[in-house]
Amino acid sequence: MHLELDGYLELSGVLPKEAQSELEAFFEEANKKILKKGAPKGKESEGAQVTKWSLKGDKIELRINSGRYVRAHTALLRLSNALSKILGSKYHTGIRKSVATTYKIETELEKTPLEPITLPFTKELTIKDKTATVIMVEMDESELKRNYPDRLLRRLEEKITAQYVHGKAEYTRTVERSHKGLEKYKLREDPTETAVKLGWVKEFPGAGIWQILPPYAALIRAIENMIIDDIAKPLGFQEVMLPRLIPLDVEMKKGHFGIANEIIWVCPPISRDPKEFEEILDYVEITGTPPVELLQKKLRPPMFGLAYAQCEPFYELFAQEIVNIEDLEKNPIKFYDKNGPTWRWEGGGLKGLERLNEFHRVEFVYMAPPQKCIEIRDQVLEKAKTMVDKDLDLEYRIDATTAVYLEHAGIAEEQKEEEFVKTYDLTVILPFETKSRPEAELEISSFHVHTDFYAKRFHFRDKTRKTVYTGCVGMGPSRYAYVTLIRHGFNYDDWPPKIKKYIGKKLPEVPKTVTWP
Amino acid sequence: MHLELDGYLELSGVLPKEAQSELEAFFEEANKKILKKGAPKGKESEGAQVTKWSLKGDKIELRINSGRYVRAHTALLRLSNALSKILGSKYHTGIRKSVATTYKIETELEKTPLEPITLPFTKELTIKDKTATVIMVEMDESELKRNYPDRLLRRLEEKITAQYVHGKAEYTRTVERSHKGLEKYKLREDPTETAVKLGWVKEFPGAGIWQILPPYAALIRAIENMIIDDIAKPLGFQEVMLPRLIPLDVEMKKGHFGIANEIIWVCPPISRDPKEFEEILDYVEITGTPPVELLQKKLRPPMFGLAYAQCEPFYELFAQEIVNIEDLEKNPIKFYDKNGPTWRWEGGGLKGLERLNEFHRVEFVYMAPPQKCIEIRDQVLEKAKTMVDKDLDLEYRIDATTAVYLEHAGIAEEQKEEEFVKTYDLTVILPFETKSRPEAELEISSFHVHTDFYAKRFHFRDKTRKTVYTGCVGMGPSRYAYVTLIRHGFNYDDWPPKIKKYIGKKLPEVPKTVTWP
Repeated sequence: MHLELDGYLELSGVLPKEAQSELEAFFEEANKKILKKGAPKGKESEGAQVTKWSLKGDKIELRINSGRYVRAHTALLRLSNALSKILGSKYHTGIRKSVATTYKIETELEKTPLEPITLPFTKELTIKDKTATVIMVEMDESELKRNYPDRLLRRLEEKITAQYVHGKAEYTRTVERSHKGLEKYKLREDPTETAVKLGWVKEFPGAGIWQILPPYAALIRAIENMIIDDIAKPLGFQEVMLPRLIPLDVEMKKGHFGIANEIIWVCPPISRDPKEFEEILDYVEITGTPPVELLQKKLRPPMFGLAYAQCEPFYELFAQEIVNIEDLEKNPIKFYDKNGPTWRWEGGGLKGLERLNEFHRVEFVYMAPPQKCIEIRDQVLEKAKTMVDKDLDLEYRIDATTAVYLEHAGIAEEQKEEEFVKTYDLTVILPFETKSRPEAELEISSFHVHTDFYAKRFHFRDKTRKTVYTGCVGMGPSRYAYVTLIRHGFNYDDWPPKIKKYIGKKLPEVPKTVTWP
Repeated sequence: MHLELDGYLELSGVLPKEAQSELEAFFEEANKKILKKGAPKGKESEGAQVTKWSLKGDKIELRINSGRYVRAHTALLRLSNALSKILGSKYHTGIRKSVATTYKIETELEKTPLEPITLPFTKELTIKDKTATVIMVEMDESELKRNYPDRLLRRLEEKITAQYVHGKAEYTRTVERSHKGLEKYKLREDPTETAVKLGWVKEFPGAGIWQILPPYAALIRAIENMIIDDIAKPLGFQEVMLPRLIPLDVEMKKGHFGIANEIIWVCPPISRDPKEFEEILDYVEITGTPPVELLQKKLRPPMFGLAYAQCEPFYELFAQEIVNIEDLEKNPIKFYDKNGPTWRWEGGGLKGLERLNEFHRVEFVYMAPPQKCIEIRDQVLEKAKTMVDKDLDLEYRIDATTAVYLEHAGIAEEQKEEEFVKTYDLTVILPFETKSRPEAELEISSFHVHTDFYAKRFHFRDKTRKTVYTGCVGMGPSRYAYVTLIRHGFNYDDWPPKIKKYIGKKLPEVPKTVTWP
């Protein structure tokens, strides 16, 4: 690794002539000591070195060359620090700025990239075989202090790694298959059209968002209640209400800017003063059309994302807190949330009830020591299987697959041999392809252990620094209702007793108008 | 009312000389017939008149003067229509455009404005005593057809009326006061701090949005269940799930652009392609800060508002439908929705648990013939009073106040003597001022009849065109929980039996960490 930084230190004034020799001595000394500090013995040549400098007016221009051990930008900051003490006491002169005007890093890569790569804050990036040359320009002190150069190199490696990873499919293996047959399924085609015809649902002007009328609402609620009564409560989960507006800072810690393209973002109005919005109402009243552009100008930049994973606030709840792992061994934290819908931006191409932009999910979240955390996840999985198998009588499959916490952080990591499975998906087999994707199946739940990924990102820890694990499980009543309908049909008499217990003797009806349903 | 329009008809080609006399005859005839059509007998002078015209190249320039009965812009469109037939058959020439280059309207106002007024699409607006002069320029055919000029005049009158209306307070009268005393209330100050200390709630990084932990979640759910079991079900309301993302078009029909400053708006990403968002993740990974500006550039213009009233989708459900009022007399449509939180932008100054940006509400919606609709609203009100009075033992007040449907449409209308009350508010009296407002009280429910306001705006109607009313009631478990806590305190033993019935023997606990709660 070779680094070459051309930059300058800007002083608060012009130094007297005699300072020249002072500076000479300073740089000579620095090259021997502070710019080598931290380099392992025998590798001092891979520390940093000021190879050129000159005093021009109120600027000291310099070139620093280094290897990996004292990066050139670290060297610049060290010089600035040490020099400011000397200049301050002797000449009452301070250092105003430390800037890298051109910073060139040559580094060896682990792998050759397969496709072109872009990097931010970079003027030039060239890759030849396994050698990358990155040129940054005009990087100021705060950027250097926050270690942009090293972060850039890390990001470069991440992007190359991602090119070698080919998505979920290659890491997915089926670990269990139910033995039931599809021949029992009452419906042979997607139920959406029939549900619309019967008025169980009605289209809403927004793809993947539906009006849910009494019969279908009753089915969704029945399933939600089954999940709570048969899984959450027996396993000791307690209800919490997790917010649905996720501040950008929490989104960042969760890693969600890696999937910003799938999140729906939220912008509050720039002001609560109605006067600011008068022209919007004027426009609507005169034109009779929605004031899209005008409104856009009256919004703040995005402040929140709409809850995507549902569990985002759970990790934030413990941000900066210290937990006691021994307490968690006895009493792991186990919550569930069913505080309304969550959202994923699936785009405008959604057609059926199976894949939605706004949907219902019961989310389980838990925190425990590693082994306990895996155990909790597996207990929820067992009970979910019983529900799908015995109560709903569906054909299904369990897959072990890519860790969801990496996926949700947009991180593509090559799978290693692991001691345990991070994510299980529960997928129901269908007798036809769904409306929105060419798949004769639907994933209806997933079961996760996150290791200490979120503990680290949200900065919570055990008081003795033992490892704290978290996990979550999402079970979507919206999708459970869909597959239940396919298996048992629209005739209430045919529905499983467990569901009917929650709904009662009769399924609620849809009111009739002259034209609908 | 005097209208003067200077404009032109643009032809698809230049007419031959002989057309000049044809046009002369046409305008003479038009001034007698088609430009008078619709003016009442004896008021023909208040129809329209072409007072000047000339054929210049491919344009016919003209001036039209009119009174109120055939507005000058209507006259222009009539002329264009009639002339295009003649020119088409005789000269194979069409009319490409009809434009009002300058359109001046002088009109008498009902009232003199109290403050300056602005109007869109208007070059000049002058008001002298009760005479307004509005000058519009470059108004094209589609704008004239959609009747912008008349809509502008209506908007002008609305804005003047609004200046004479001084808000809710002046139209509010108390119709009932409970006799209970505040001395029974267990808490003498706002419970927020104690709730935070006990870990019943935790701050979330977003004002007016809270993490709700098991004990407080249990209280909110108990109240929600009471509302459903004691009010919704006995009165025959059925559960529906109303969407939370309200498309701009529905917002418009609901009238919500009148309160755009209180709504939180939603912008999906411009693309689902992760490549489009690569630089956002780059930025986050390098800088460690949320990519506010970058993200803003990657969002579509606002597509939805977050549900504010909760009932928005109910009216959309019936948009364009025809109902049978006789069926509705026997079986009025009665739904309730508790499909998660809704949102109001109260700004960043929120401090307590009483006023929130994200909050819970059970929303009742109903459609019926007028008398029946009022009856339904009054039944819900009666039962809500019983709950607040008998079960929760609170001191409260019922006010008759401004119609909420006007308020939510940003319409300030002077109250007239009415045959019935459109909106009742149920307000609980508190022994202290709340955190976010200098009021020792909190409105916890409101009860509405909308007349046929939404039937008209969403275009649904009875098949025999009899009047269809709608109404809604919002009861907020978030606020009920807050006042219940103040009345009965944090000690579970002291809570009303009705609430304890839902929660069980013990209130669920908050997990303890070393540092929280």
